Amino acid sequence: MLLRLQKGLPDDQIETVLALARDLGYRTRFLDDRAEILNLEGPGRPDHRPRFEDLCAVKAVLDAGEARERHERDGRADTVVRVGEARFGGGFVSVIAGPCAVEDADRLVEIARDVRARGATLLRGGAWKPRTSPYSFQGLKEEGLEMLAHARAETGIGIVTEVLDPRDVARVGAVADMFQIGARSMTNTPLLIEVGRTRKPVLLKRGIQSSVREFLLAAEFILAQGNTQIVLCERGVRGTDNTTRNLLDVGAVAHLKLATHLPVIVDPSHAAGRSELVRPLARAGLAAGADGLIVEVHPDPGEVHSDGSQAVSPAMFGAIVEDAVALAALDERRVVLAQPLRAAL
Amino acid sequence: MLLRLQKGLPDDQIETVLALARDLGYRTRFLDDRAEILNLEGPGRPDHRPRFEDLCAVKAVLDAGEARERHERDGRADTVVRVGEARFGGGFVSVIAGPCAVEDADRLVEIARDVRARGATLLRGGAWKPRTSPYSFQGLKEEGLEMLAHARAETGIGIVTEVLDPRDVARVGAVADMFQIGARSMTNTPLLIEVGRTRKPVLLKRGIQSSVREFLLAAEFILAQGNTQIVLCERGVRGTDNTTRNLLDVGAVAHLKLATHLPVIVDPSHAAGRSELVRPLARAGLAAGADGLIVEVHPDPGEVHSDGSQAVSPAMFGAIVEDAVALAALDERRVVLAQPLRAAL
Amino acid sequence: MLLRLQKGLPDDQIETVLALARDLGYRTRFLDDRAEILNLEGPGRPDHRPRFEDLCAVKAVLDAGEARERHERDGRADTVVRVGEARFGGGFVSVIAGPCAVEDADRLVEIARDVRARGATLLRGGAWKPRTSPYSFQGLKEEGLEMLAHARAETGIGIVTEVLDPRDVARVGAVADMFQIGARSMTNTPLLIEVGRTRKPVLLKRGIQSSVREFLLAAEFILAQGNTQIVLCERGVRGTDNTTRNLLDVGAVAHLKLATHLPVIVDPSHAAGRSELVRPLARAGLAAGADGLIVEVHPDPGEVHSDGSQAVSPAMFGAIVEDAVALAALDERRVVLAQPLRAAL
Amino acid sequence: MLLRLQKGLPDDQIETVLALARDLGYRTRFLDDRAEILNLEGPGRPDHRPRFEDLCAVKAVLDAGEARERHERDGRADTVVRVGEARFGGGFVSVIAGPCAVEDADRLVEIARDVRARGATLLRGGAWKPRTSPYSFQGLKEEGLEMLAHARAETGIGIVTEVLDPRDVARVGAVADMFQIGARSMTNTPLLIEVGRTRKPVLLKRGIQSSVREFLLAAEFILAQGNTQIVLCERGVRGTDNTTRNLLDVGAVAHLKLATHLPVIVDPSHAAGRSELVRPLARAGLAAGADGLIVEVHPDPGEVHSDGSQAVSPAMFGAIVEDAVALAALDERRVVLAQPLRAAL
Repeated sequence: MLLRLQKGLPDDQIETVLALARDLGYRTRFLDDRAEILNLEGPGRPDHRPRFEDLCAVKAVLDAGEARERHERDGRADTVVRVGEARFGGGFVSVIAGPCAVEDADRLVEIARDVRARGATLLRGGAWKPRTSPYSFQGLKEEGLEMLAHARAETGIGIVTEVLDPRDVARVGAVADMFQIGARSMTNTPLLIEVGRTRKPVLLKRGIQSSVREFLLAAEFILAQGNTQIVLCERGVRGTDNTTRNLLDVGAVAHLKLATHLPVIVDPSHAAGRSELVRPLARAGLAAGADGLIVEVHPDPGEVHSDGSQAVSPAMFGAIVEDAVALAALDERRVVLAQPLRAAL
Repeated sequence: MLLRLQKGLPDDQIETVLALARDLGYRTRFLDDRAEILNLEGPGRPDHRPRFEDLCAVKAVLDAGEARERHERDGRADTVVRVGEARFGGGFVSVIAGPCAVEDADRLVEIARDVRARGATLLRGGAWKPRTSPYSFQGLKEEGLEMLAHARAETGIGIVTEVLDPRDVARVGAVADMFQIGARSMTNTPLLIEVGRTRKPVLLKRGIQSSVREFLLAAEFILAQGNTQIVLCERGVRGTDNTTRNLLDVGAVAHLKLATHLPVIVDPSHAAGRSELVRPLARAGLAAGADGLIVEVHPDPGEVHSDGSQAVSPAMFGAIVEDAVALAALDERRVVLAQPLRAAL
Repeated sequence: MLLRLQKGLPDDQIETVLALARDLGYRTRFLDDRAEILNLEGPGRPDHRPRFEDLCAVKAVLDAGEARERHERDGRADTVVRVGEARFGGGFVSVIAGPCAVEDADRLVEIARDVRARGATLLRGGAWKPRTSPYSFQGLKEEGLEMLAHARAETGIGIVTEVLDPRDVARVGAVADMFQIGARSMTNTPLLIEVGRTRKPVLLKRGIQSSVREFLLAAEFILAQGNTQIVLCERGVRGTDNTTRNLLDVGAVAHLKLATHLPVIVDPSHAAGRSELVRPLARAGLAAGADGLIVEVHPDPGEVHSDGSQAVSPAMFGAIVEDAVALAALDERRVVLAQPLRAAL
Repeated sequence: MLLRLQKGLPDDQIETVLALARDLGYRTRFLDDRAEILNLEGPGRPDHRPRFEDLCAVKAVLDAGEARERHERDGRADTVVRVGEARFGGGFVSVIAGPCAVEDADRLVEIARDVRARGATLLRGGAWKPRTSPYSFQGLKEEGLEMLAHARAETGIGIVTEVLDPRDVARVGAVADMFQIGARSMTNTPLLIEVGRTRKPVLLKRGIQSSVREFLLAAEFILAQGNTQIVLCERGVRGTDNTTRNLLDVGAVAHLKLATHLPVIVDPSHAAGRSELVRPLARAGLAAGADGLIVEVHPDPGEVHSDGSQAVSPAMFGAIVEDAVALAALDERRVVLAQPLRAAL
């Protein structure tokens, strides 16, 4: 590890750093005359880096050396996350689709059947909805979970649904095949720890203005509990222009494919905020290297309680899946399609 | 209420809007020929606005009319929030001070005594710390709470401490005089609801990139549960330059003083990220109209586990309180000082 | 046109608005009782909208009606911009490539020959470089122009080069086949007007934090002078994370293809800031609908004076052109390749 | 100087760095085994740093050592900039006021007389206006300059006015006592060089999303030409929320007072974008350490062509000057008032 210390530190603060390094089993050596560049040789463990970063005397950890964190690529092959028929990573691309919120049982079965026939292997749909206003529709909760379970029973599609509260992890997990952690919950560490304690796959969305490092460390909270079944989801960051709702950070997607072994998908719907921009953003995400998509689909966007203007029609969704098939082929990757479809295409 | 509908809506979507309006007891009238500007006259309730905003057919609520939300100023006098000796709002300015995290019982008593002698009426200190990395120091938890209770018993100062998890609200509330909801938890609605169910004062920090409207609606989650004892805290938003850690949004402070009856304080320490900028930022926040400050103070910043470089010395803290006294006087407001001090100054 | 006036205006300010409307030949009618929503019927001209926006009494132009600006799509077919062999828009995709700055005549010929052989129809290269520091290399200026002219004479490739100063438009235009207006000059209206007065094609880069509307209005400055040969270039906006140098705004690309008839290309090199991310960003931009690319290419990145870490090798550039061919085909568009190549591919 | 080189460089690239260092007269020594941390001892000149930064092999200049740039504080006393009666820096605070654009000769004299009587020592007013749309009012140009000269002749107040085009520097300089370089021109280096060649004071506004380092290097372009009479102006950066038009970066003000010897003022009008927030932002800027203000004032905001909603009334301006007097006194600084006023206050 290579540390940069603050300038002109008093001796006792330098000694604090050296003492910690020795306690953790490192040999220490200053590389310069001013005692600012400190080289550490020794064990290297993922939890050592922040121990040094926490010290005031340490300006920066210039090189973390061997102290790898669990999310790091570090030469490792892709982690492949499997959820029902879906597979993410390792050359597999999967598509999640469904309405923003779960609102009507029959409608949900209809949508599930429709998106599955067009290639989706997982159904999204919120039973608990994170909302900005306490007066907005907050989701059907338990009743929504039952509708999701019913849709799976009727169609065979897997279920991805959001959990907002650590106290709900058990009951949401009883129905969901994959937990969704929303952008507003990415920094909710008690919730990350709780889903980390399960062994169920987690779809982790990037916070609205989180850095890539913060995003990876949110995944690290889950990994540190022993759950490695994490799919990262880039869903757009907040920008200064409101032409699109958010800025889909395709550079982050490309970077993440190099920096971590975890699969990465994109959410073109929340990034676009307008249905006519969803297809080009889906394409852009896949072209940048994403291992999948999560898309809001609704047969009648005028009917829904929230975010209707960003939902695409089933027909448009079908076109997006066709795009995905073509784009995946450019890299010799392939889109995992729902069972009945595989024969057909 | 005045609504702007989407252009060229089919009749059934227009009827959906009109039906909802009628159900809620409004008379409806289009103001234009194209059926895009819809005027509603009727009851007006804070929960009606999002009902319309949720409809796809509604592009915007141009004027919420009588449908006031609970945080709105709307001609109301300042809410004065009282916590121990501290008072925020209504011409009263109070100062909260203390270390970032609670780490040592004796040190904490020493700091509490020192900052109280210099004018602080409340002690801040984290027992649970929200951290970016799972390997960073996460706080002493229960043990930290005991140290805070001990510091209060020894010095008489009130306690402000962060709660991160809705499952901890009861035990943190057993010690804290005021809950702190950190910037990373502003969107954690289950937690907001849980502290809203208590009647204990809440220090609500603005999310790192939340809009002012999102901030006010986070307060609304607490208000909607019946808890009106909320102090808003502007702590800097994330910008594109790293000269300062965050951008202290003094314009938001000035706006909030007009837009809401809730008191507003600033956190110059997290905004600055460097101790030498804390004093000018504290001044700027008060000059913009803030009803108080929350300042990180530590007698030996080299000793602490996190954020040490932004803590100010007790002497610098004393100078900041003197600034506050002078700045409050410009508006005929006054700084509430801890009891023994009041006679002295 | 539909205007929203400020609330509670005094009569004389309302009269100011009505008088202007009448002067411009509009019939006026208020749609509401409070005299806030004003409908204008009449001629509609691109220069009328800002006349109303400039009035204090006018809060917003809700609907610009017939007052179209010259850049607006408004049902028009793509403008096809032709520069030498290159064509942008109308189903044609072209690729610009070359070094950041022009530094050596022989090297430039070598690069020009190489990128042309791999599919580039235009050579980029800065003779005047916009730099952040007065002490950085500012380009070879006149000498650089001569090298560019020499490279064209040797290889037949067209030349795109930046003009920074309105006083240089004539001499740069004597060599360049296409002017480049850099991101730092997008708001330099005297320069926009000067290149608008020529009839030479202009590559207009989006400002580092400009909104899409500001970008389109910068193009409007050129269009208003009568020059319609404009290619818009999205090159990434500044974000709060430094994982990538800039955020390539693929949503803006998708939006621009709907909103304007002008062609749009992307600059993956400046967005990425690191050579290993250039190829995925080039793909993402094309997948979002871009009509071309501008890519920094250098056979030996270690040799150059600026921005070397984002230049790709000629081999990588070849792979990017192959990607472009495949991606363009998805939409039945085609990549315009340099002449000798067309037969070969 | 201390350089951090890229990892694993080939020998020839390392040699390129060492050769440059030797050419510039430095002794070189690697501090580590991997040849990544390179120490340079030698002359140190402001133009050496970017020479190294330009090299691809150099990842970062960790410590610029003695190679100081001209704007750096480096222990120097404040530069005091004198313009007519105004003085900025070195304990002097001055206030600039006036309309956004110059529109009417009599009105301008009236405003000049009024703001001077309330404490302004300089009159602002745009003859050339930088505008987003080519169809907006672009200023009265030559005629506006004449009105400014007339207002000075009538009242004795000094003139600050914007120059947009390097070709206009001579004729604007014939009237202006101080050039204004607007936010949109901060990166217009030919213009910076041109005003740097004069010896007339320059008010340099920070670009809408420029970093503090970019802002200081824009000043460095002027300083490098030999003109040291520069007043920096923080006017708000673009944020993601539109509650205020821009975010007044008071942290940057506080930082600049430490980092440079040049005076710094704030523009609360453009930051606020709404007249009711101008006074609190003016206070915040001064409290953070600003050496002055530039404020838009208009007796009848309804009358103006642009930005009227952010202009304050003369009475409100008077209150702002009173605030400035009180705030300056906190630091034993003083507000420089126009001559007739000095006796009166």
